[in-house]
Amino acid sequence: MGEHSTDILLQIFIIFTAAKVLGFAGQKIQIPPVISEIVAGILIGPYALKLVRVEEWTLALAELGAIVLLFSVGLEQKLTNLLRVGRTALLVAVLGVVLPFLLGWGLLALLDHSQTESVFMGAAMVATSVGITARVLREMGVLRTLVATVILGAAVVDDILGMIILAVASSLTTGVNYLEIAAVTGLALGFTVFIILVGRRVVRQAAHQARQFAASDPIFALAMVICLGLSLVAAKIQIAAIIGAFLAGLVFSEEELAEGLREEVSTLYEFLVPFFFVGMGMQMDISVLGRLDVLLLAGVVTLLAIVGKLVGCGLGAYELGWRPALQVGVGMVPRGEVGIIIAAIGLNMAAISDEIYSVTIIMVLITTLLAPPFLKMLFSERPMPEARLHSSGDVV
Amino acid sequence: MGEHSTDILLQIFIIFTAAKVLGFAGQKIQIPPVISEIVAGILIGPYALKLVRVEEWTLALAELGAIVLLFSVGLEQKLTNLLRVGRTALLVAVLGVVLPFLLGWGLLALLDHSQTESVFMGAAMVATSVGITARVLREMGVLRTLVATVILGAAVVDDILGMIILAVASSLTTGVNYLEIAAVTGLALGFTVFIILVGRRVVRQAAHQARQFAASDPIFALAMVICLGLSLVAAKIQIAAIIGAFLAGLVFSEEELAEGLREEVSTLYEFLVPFFFVGMGMQMDISVLGRLDVLLLAGVVTLLAIVGKLVGCGLGAYELGWRPALQVGVGMVPRGEVGIIIAAIGLNMAAISDEIYSVTIIMVLITTLLAPPFLKMLFSERPMPEARLHSSGDVV
Repeated sequence: MGEHSTDILLQIFIIFTAAKVLGFAGQKIQIPPVISEIVAGILIGPYALKLVRVEEWTLALAELGAIVLLFSVGLEQKLTNLLRVGRTALLVAVLGVVLPFLLGWGLLALLDHSQTESVFMGAAMVATSVGITARVLREMGVLRTLVATVILGAAVVDDILGMIILAVASSLTTGVNYLEIAAVTGLALGFTVFIILVGRRVVRQAAHQARQFAASDPIFALAMVICLGLSLVAAKIQIAAIIGAFLAGLVFSEEELAEGLREEVSTLYEFLVPFFFVGMGMQMDISVLGRLDVLLLAGVVTLLAIVGKLVGCGLGAYELGWRPALQVGVGMVPRGEVGIIIAAIGLNMAAISDEIYSVTIIMVLITTLLAPPFLKMLFSERPMPEARLHSSGDVV
Repeated sequence: MGEHSTDILLQIFIIFTAAKVLGFAGQKIQIPPVISEIVAGILIGPYALKLVRVEEWTLALAELGAIVLLFSVGLEQKLTNLLRVGRTALLVAVLGVVLPFLLGWGLLALLDHSQTESVFMGAAMVATSVGITARVLREMGVLRTLVATVILGAAVVDDILGMIILAVASSLTTGVNYLEIAAVTGLALGFTVFIILVGRRVVRQAAHQARQFAASDPIFALAMVICLGLSLVAAKIQIAAIIGAFLAGLVFSEEELAEGLREEVSTLYEFLVPFFFVGMGMQMDISVLGRLDVLLLAGVVTLLAIVGKLVGCGLGAYELGWRPALQVGVGMVPRGEVGIIIAAIGLNMAAISDEIYSVTIIMVLITTLLAPPFLKMLFSERPMPEARLHSSGDVV
C-alpha cells in the first residue's frame, strides 16, 4: 500500500505540475493550455522522459477530466441557441463526417489494406474533438458566438455519427449486422432528443426537490450525480460518455442555478482537465517519427483529415458566409479523444495494425496541434456576433 | 478501453451518488456525512452489496480525497494558534500515544501473540484520524476554537509519533535497527519544523513570483502543486502523505490568498473527499462479525483504544479544565486512515494475521463511528471560546 500509493502520488504530482508549468509558460507566448498540456504529456510520457506511465488510474483520471471538460462546455451553452442552429449544425456534421470517412477509407482501400482496416481508418477520421476547439473558444471568450454554437452543435451530431460508423466498423469484423447498426443508431438519436426535450424539466424538478430535502446546498452534488449518470448512460448505450456529460451541462445551463455552478465546475476543471490532455499526450509514441513510410502515410492521412473537414464542414456552413464557414471548418478539424478511442478499439480487436494505430495518433495530434493557432487567428481579427443576436431566425 | 472505462465510470457514479444520497439523508437526522459516507462504503462495498470493488484507481482517488481533506483542514487553521498551543498539544499527543500503545501491545502479549504482532497492534492503536474529527468540528463550525486547535496540533504530532512506532514495528521483522529508527524520527521532526518555520516565507515569495509570471490567476494551481509536492515529500521520508497536505494547507492559511482559495478547495473537497470515506467503508469485511472470538477480541481492543485516548489525551489536556480535556480526549479517539494503513502494512509483511487485521479494522470503524456523536454532544451544549481569544498566553 505504502510504496505503491507513493508512486501514484508522485505521478499525479508530475502530471499536474508539468501541465501547469508548461500551461502558464505557454500562455506567455500565446500558446493555449490545450497544446502546452498535450506537449507536457508527450515530454513526461513513456515515449520520451519516461517520468510517468499509462495505467488504469491514469486513464480513470483522464476520463474524469474529459467528463468535467464536456460538462463545463455544455454548461456554457444556451440550449435554445443550439436548437436554433440545429439545421446548420446538422448539415455541417453530416458533410463533415461523410467526406473524411470516404477519404480515409478510400486511401487505405487504394493502398490494398483490408476492408476492415480501411473502414476503421475512415471512422477514426470522422469524430471532431469538440473539447479542444471548445477550450480554445472558451479561452478566447467566443464560446457563445453563432459560429461556436454551430461547431458545438455539429460536434455533438458528429460524435453520434462517429459512434454509428464505429459500430458499423466493429460489426464488420464478425460480419455485417444491420440490426445492431439500426439499434445503435436509434438509441443514440433517441437519447439525445430525449435529454434535450425532457431533461430541463426533470432537472428543474429535481433541483427543487433536493433543495427542499437537503440541509446544505445540494446543487453541485446533484449536478455531478446527473453528469456522471448521463455519461454512464451514454457509455452504456454505446455512444461516448463525454456526450452524456455535454448533455448534462446543457441541461443545467438553462437553470437559474448555472451561475454558482459555473464557478464550482471551473475549479474542478482546473484540477481534473489537465489529466485528460496530459493523458492524451502521454499515449503518443514518438519513436514512429523515425520511420519514413509511417511518416509519409501519416502526412497524407493528416492532409486528407484536414481537407475533409475544411471542405465538408465549410460547405455545410456556407450559408453563414465564407468567413464563418472557414471558422466552422477549422473548428471541426481537431480529432481527439474519440479518434484515439476508435483507434484503440481497432487495435484491441486486432482490426488495425500497429502502424495504422500510430498513423491515427499522429493524425489526431497534428490536427489537434494545428487547429488552435488557426482558430485563434480567424477569431481574433474582428469581434463575432453573439448567437443570441440572431434571434430573427434567418440562420435556420 | 471502452468496456473497462465504462465499468470505472459506473463505480465512480455509484460511490459518489451513494455518498451524497446517504450524506444528505443523514444530515436530516443529525448524522455527520463522515459516518453516512463510511456506511455508504460498507453498504456498496465488496463485503455487502458488491456494487463496487477496491481497485488501484479507487485507492488513488481515496488518497487524493484524503490529501484534499487534510489540505482543507490545514487551510482553516491559524499557524500562530497552533504554535501557541504547542506545549499542550505535545503533551496530549505523547500521553495519547504511549497509553494506547502499551494497552494494545500488552493485551496481545498477554494473549500469547508474537512480539511483532503485539507491537503492530499497539502501533495501529496510536494514530488519531484527524480527518474524521476535523470534519465533525468543521461541520459544527468550531474548527478555530482552542480545543480544536489543540486536537489538530496533537494529531500532527500523533501521526509523526505513529509513523515512528510503525518504523520500529517494521524493523522488528528484520531485527531491531536503531539507526533506522533514529533516521526516521529525525526526518519527520525536521520536516515539520522546517515547513512551519520556512514554509510561509517561501509560499509568499512563490505566490508573488507566480502572479508576476502568469497571465491568469495561478494561486489555485500553485497551492495544488505545493499540496501534492509536500504530500509526496512526506510520503518519501516515511511519514504519512496527508501530513504533508496538512502542512501545505497550514502554510497557505496565513496568506492573504486564503479566502479565494478556501472556496476553490471546498469545491474539490465536495467532489473528492467522499471517495476517501466511502473507500474506507468499502474495506470493512463484515463477515467477521459472525465469529465470536474475533468479535470478543475486537470489543476489548476497541474498549482499550477508547480508554487509552480518553485517559492519555485527557491527562495531557488537563490544564485546560475537565470539560475541554474530555473534548480533547474524545476528539482523539477516532482512528482512521493511518490505523488502516498500519494494519495493511502489517498484513503485507505477514507480521499480523487476518484476524488481527479484521480486529484492527473493526476498532478503527467503531472508534470512528462512536466519536462524532459524542463530539457533537460535547461541543453543542455551550459555545466554545475561540483560540485567538486566549492570546494572553496562559494556555501555554
